[in-house]
Amino acid sequence: MRIILDGMGGDNAPGEIVKGAVEASKLIEDEIIIVGDGDKIEFQLKKYKYSDEKISVKHASEVIENDDAPVRAVRRKKDSSMVVGLNMVKSGEGDLFISAGNTGALMAGALFNLGRIQGIDRPAIASIYPILGTKKPSLLVDAGANSECKPSNLLEFAMMGSIYMEKVLGRENPKIGLVNLGVEETKGSTLTKAAFGLLEKSHLNFSGNIEAREVPLGGADVVVCDGFVGNVILKLTEGLAINIVNLLKKKFTENARAKMGAVLLSKKLRSLKEEFDYTEYGGAPILGVKGPVVKMHGSSNANAVKNSILKAIPFAEENVVGIISESVFEIEEVLIEEE
Amino acid sequence: MRIILDGMGGDNAPGEIVKGAVEASKLIEDEIIIVGDGDKIEFQLKKYKYSDEKISVKHASEVIENDDAPVRAVRRKKDSSMVVGLNMVKSGEGDLFISAGNTGALMAGALFNLGRIQGIDRPAIASIYPILGTKKPSLLVDAGANSECKPSNLLEFAMMGSIYMEKVLGRENPKIGLVNLGVEETKGSTLTKAAFGLLEKSHLNFSGNIEAREVPLGGADVVVCDGFVGNVILKLTEGLAINIVNLLKKKFTENARAKMGAVLLSKKLRSLKEEFDYTEYGGAPILGVKGPVVKMHGSSNANAVKNSILKAIPFAEENVVGIISESVFEIEEVLIEEE
Repeated sequence: MRIILDGMGGDNAPGEIVKGAVEASKLIEDEIIIVGDGDKIEFQLKKYKYSDEKISVKHASEVIENDDAPVRAVRRKKDSSMVVGLNMVKSGEGDLFISAGNTGALMAGALFNLGRIQGIDRPAIASIYPILGTKKPSLLVDAGANSECKPSNLLEFAMMGSIYMEKVLGRENPKIGLVNLGVEETKGSTLTKAAFGLLEKSHLNFSGNIEAREVPLGGADVVVCDGFVGNVILKLTEGLAINIVNLLKKKFTENARAKMGAVLLSKKLRSLKEEFDYTEYGGAPILGVKGPVVKMHGSSNANAVKNSILKAIPFAEENVVGIISESVFEIEEVLIEEE
Repeated sequence: MRIILDGMGGDNAPGEIVKGAVEASKLIEDEIIIVGDGDKIEFQLKKYKYSDEKISVKHASEVIENDDAPVRAVRRKKDSSMVVGLNMVKSGEGDLFISAGNTGALMAGALFNLGRIQGIDRPAIASIYPILGTKKPSLLVDAGANSECKPSNLLEFAMMGSIYMEKVLGRENPKIGLVNLGVEETKGSTLTKAAFGLLEKSHLNFSGNIEAREVPLGGADVVVCDGFVGNVILKLTEGLAINIVNLLKKKFTENARAKMGAVLLSKKLRSLKEEFDYTEYGGAPILGVKGPVVKMHGSSNANAVKNSILKAIPFAEENVVGIISESVFEIEEVLIEEE
């Protein structure tokens, strides 16, 4: 397989991107093609030992910046690492595209350059949501791509998320939960009430509504919501985790007795920090476009890049895009029944 | 002042409600009238020493249960502790109503029995949101009463929240933040973009959009969002806090070394738990109805009841309802300007 990696996206590009690619390359047989400023990437690559056959560079002269307007950027910067990389997947030169760049641009670029899967109205970003104390993360769809949704969009998110969870994360018959104000069918907004009806009619393993308090406890394997709510869930979790870790640090260094206790607990405190570490779980897949595209966190370091590459391989290998295409008729059946 | 307390609402009624009332009564000069099943409440009261002049009982023969349909319950159960209590505020027999009962019914009852403040389209529940490591909580409006909102509703929430924050929590010129996908004005849903425009035109101290990750860090004094998002923020915070505390407990008892560390840190760990303790901050005010009504957590214990009573007093004493009524014209000015 050929993995196309955006060498210029994210806060730590190209240094950490290249380093992560080299580290991943040692663990896999697949080929990695790093797209971006040839000189800069080669300069970074020279720091490491790697196999020429497994890592190569594809030059692209432009870079889409984080503050670029997404749609305009992907339309105008035709020779950006992002657009070039996406087109390599489209043409078959690559099997998978991974980028830590501008999220909006990556979404827009995937839509323009690869296109939507026929029958999918709204592609979505799915985010791996760690469940503390377990090694079984949930998948949150949509994590922020579509701030306004129709009920049928939530059904699409559920279907695509279910396939990804099963094929990439290896969880059979994943449990789908719809984020809502309460567990009762009658609760919620116009959107969630209608989506509940559609999900119930589907072939998915729909377990009903879940309240937001169940999300961090692993209440569902696939957590379905509109992108506004998904974004709130992701960002709030991040903010609260940072806040709690900082508070622990502060409290545990307030006096000598506490400091001694913290020394004894240092291993445990470190393992707690790892629980919050998004870099272990890899990137966020964009679902619903005609090719496997993965968005890495903008602040990804080499370890995050390495893990994103490793975890993304089954996205292409298991033909998730093809399976979604073949499953679209199931959504159509539910919608026809509804009319 | 006469505080009307729902003796039958919540999971621990009437035992903990009565106990909390007795404890609060020792600290204040105001009168507390407990509404509900006279025999049961008197039975509980007999366990304690209290002043007859400061605590009395008003009999009500019915109880609104947690699984009662809200609107039907407040329409039919005319002699329930909740409806009787609300009517006491309406008639002037009481100055403030506090209940740990069915949230939907309390909202519906407040609307039917007290009525909306003229010019307020959507009354809301405001929740005190603790900011860890500080003693300065934020106020979240709407915390779940209105799952679908118009832009003008968010302006109402901001205005009412600002007044409550200033008058009851004593924070001058509170900073208003609008929950959104990003800080830029152009980001977000149709709702948040339009609300941004209204808030900017208002006299409020509007500081712009805040991302959900800033909410637990105290990014705004008054956090404004629709009730669906507010409910997600509250419940997710609760779920994540429980999860983290449980994980800490587990990790800190995994072996002898960790246990010893935990003993040395026991005081700090206890203080951490207190940070999460909602019972310290009192109940959630319902804003926009013609009388001060406070919703306590359904699982409130005596300490939570005591604090809810103490913290609710300024809601009535500072005439928050009157000030909201007098400030409605400011909303109307913004909306007229907009047209």
